[in-house]
Amino acid sequence: MASAVSPLAVALPVLAPLAGVRLGAAAAGIRYQGRTDLVLAELAAGTTVAGVFTRSKCPGAPVDWCRAALKGGHARALVVNAGNANVFTGRAGTEATKATAAAAADLVGCKPREVMLASTGVIGEVLPYDRLTAALPALHASLAEDGWEAAARGIMTTDTFPKAAVRTARIGDTDVTLQGFCKGSGMIAPDMATMLCFVFTDAKLPAPCLQVMLRKGVDASFNRTTVDSDTSTSDTVLLFATGQAKHKRVPAEGGRMLRGFRAALDALLLDLAVQVVGDGEGAQKRVRIDVRGAVSTGSAKRVAFSIANSPLVKTTIAGEDANWGRIVAAVGKAGEPADRDRLSIAIGGVWVARDGAVVAGYDEVPVVAHMKGHEVTIEVDLALGRGRATVWTCDLTHGYIDINASYRS
Amino acid sequence: MASAVSPLAVALPVLAPLAGVRLGAAAAGIRYQGRTDLVLAELAAGTTVAGVFTRSKCPGAPVDWCRAALKGGHARALVVNAGNANVFTGRAGTEATKATAAAAADLVGCKPREVMLASTGVIGEVLPYDRLTAALPALHASLAEDGWEAAARGIMTTDTFPKAAVRTARIGDTDVTLQGFCKGSGMIAPDMATMLCFVFTDAKLPAPCLQVMLRKGVDASFNRTTVDSDTSTSDTVLLFATGQAKHKRVPAEGGRMLRGFRAALDALLLDLAVQVVGDGEGAQKRVRIDVRGAVSTGSAKRVAFSIANSPLVKTTIAGEDANWGRIVAAVGKAGEPADRDRLSIAIGGVWVARDGAVVAGYDEVPVVAHMKGHEVTIEVDLALGRGRATVWTCDLTHGYIDINASYRS
Repeated sequence: MASAVSPLAVALPVLAPLAGVRLGAAAAGIRYQGRTDLVLAELAAGTTVAGVFTRSKCPGAPVDWCRAALKGGHARALVVNAGNANVFTGRAGTEATKATAAAAADLVGCKPREVMLASTGVIGEVLPYDRLTAALPALHASLAEDGWEAAARGIMTTDTFPKAAVRTARIGDTDVTLQGFCKGSGMIAPDMATMLCFVFTDAKLPAPCLQVMLRKGVDASFNRTTVDSDTSTSDTVLLFATGQAKHKRVPAEGGRMLRGFRAALDALLLDLAVQVVGDGEGAQKRVRIDVRGAVSTGSAKRVAFSIANSPLVKTTIAGEDANWGRIVAAVGKAGEPADRDRLSIAIGGVWVARDGAVVAGYDEVPVVAHMKGHEVTIEVDLALGRGRATVWTCDLTHGYIDINASYRS
Repeated sequence: MASAVSPLAVALPVLAPLAGVRLGAAAAGIRYQGRTDLVLAELAAGTTVAGVFTRSKCPGAPVDWCRAALKGGHARALVVNAGNANVFTGRAGTEATKATAAAAADLVGCKPREVMLASTGVIGEVLPYDRLTAALPALHASLAEDGWEAAARGIMTTDTFPKAAVRTARIGDTDVTLQGFCKGSGMIAPDMATMLCFVFTDAKLPAPCLQVMLRKGVDASFNRTTVDSDTSTSDTVLLFATGQAKHKRVPAEGGRMLRGFRAALDALLLDLAVQVVGDGEGAQKRVRIDVRGAVSTGSAKRVAFSIANSPLVKTTIAGEDANWGRIVAAVGKAGEPADRDRLSIAIGGVWVARDGAVVAGYDEVPVVAHMKGHEVTIEVDLALGRGRATVWTCDLTHGYIDINASYRS
């Protein structure tokens, strides 16, 4: 899209080859001209897979496909297209997933249900899957160990920068790598696995154990972010373990042996999730909201999201205006236990209100200076209990309106 | 504020005197310069009152005051100020309400708890109530039977037009009048009594009966609207019955005798609520969303609000783009029972999708033409049950960002 690159963009990390993964991108001409929009990854035999998907009641056909295919626990290929989400397309949508998976399976030499699919873009238009299947053979022939950047770029829609992250961990005495990329900018909302994210590791891990770790990691990362409160129909996070690393056998239940791996996975998912918020449509600032003193973790999370999704809080941040009264209103509307006269609020580490009123001698100058930066922090202490939660969001600017009042046309 | 008048503005109706009400406005200089910001109404002895307030956990001091004062069931005066909401102001806020009510009670010759209070404006700043009490004597001396328009204008904040409505009804053989005004533009959200609304009638009605009717009427009007999903700390709807009309005695429980009155009250509240949506901050279009076929009324209402609060739906309407896929996504994220393959959607009366897919031969031309108007209708049929609900919202435009990224400064 024509939007300027987000001021919160981060450079791609070095994306080295990862044993058992070859990938690449091609231009299938589904919607965009002059750019890649189709990504294929081929995975070594024996690769296990886990997935977390949108909780939307109107999921896309590729989400239906993956949910069914995941039951096998194995994957040999991943096909992703950008520009058309293949959502709300009825029987034609199911046909498109079947045909795409069959074409990729033919090329890779596996069963169709070992092919994972994801689509992102406009909802409600039939996916011209013949363009995908026509482009797949040449793309397959071009797959390479160093196709990571091409893949990260090929899945972008309104993203202004490609997003990837790398971590390492030890399993027993062996180093393993986790490497992933994702896309997401609008239709980003809590309580689901946000948008498209693909993580690969060379570790050898049973699928049930992968699944438990992925669900936990997503709950603490993507599920703590919001750009516009709009949950997508296509949200997909897939974790592939190629099993090429030569570490000790990991039991199905995982256990202590995976402590370091879990920490690395959690950190990688959070890294990617925070990058997505930093590329929120029109975002100029990223906002971290820490709520503590709530009656429970769930309550803290709901209060934090009530602030994070408030258009009035988000516009006041865009305007670099320390109008903290809007934070009070957002706490009040959350429907969670809160006592106005115990509530305290800090912006950029400066307490502006304590125990239900503005602090004596409150000086707005350092707060306004903090708000002029690209990273804004808000702390809320409800002083009722020990529940705490952190969520991330971005400001609401003219850029969001520009992008979304004209995205499709 | 500097915003252009909403294209959905309606002219004020003729606001004739209503027996038992004298009112007016003055410039107390609380925040704004060169305009009125203080409204006083004096009510005849014997006036009964009912009220519905915000469900915010951080309500303003005037809301606390009214909740306590309402227990008496009688009112002799109403004082409203614009520019400062007297919210989150701790002990100073309580002091301000006490002093204001005492000053008005002195002038009118009543008990302080017969004075109802409401404030609207910035949150978190101490209300300079000495300016209110200083302005009240001259304002009281100037009260008039024809001060309705002045009052409707004096409570505006970011509103671009004053809002009032009139209805008549018969109780027994006697005609009674209902007349009200309200303000509201931003921080408008469902599930509460939205912003400030004051309704007066010359009927003679017991307070408990007034309260029941008001709660029902608000649930079907203000509680079915949203501008930006941000519930206010100050939402207040008060209904005063001056008892000056000479109709038969109405029993405490109301009953059949009030059928016409209830219908008139419901219509008046809906009229005002829809005016508020038409003056939503930055709004260029009003959107009516009808959901049917839900498993229950509550479920239909939640699906309708999920659409009404979706920034992506609201921006696509601002862009006059028939991107109905965003309606699908908003239905999907509502968390309510929905079957993608039974879902049907119409815009402007044209069915664009039926049973989970775009209709054969769908012609976008009439839909786009409809969206170019100022009133947009969306119908959703879930085809699961008999639950139905209608809610109103507005589009999300650059105007909303302009107003809210700089409201305070």
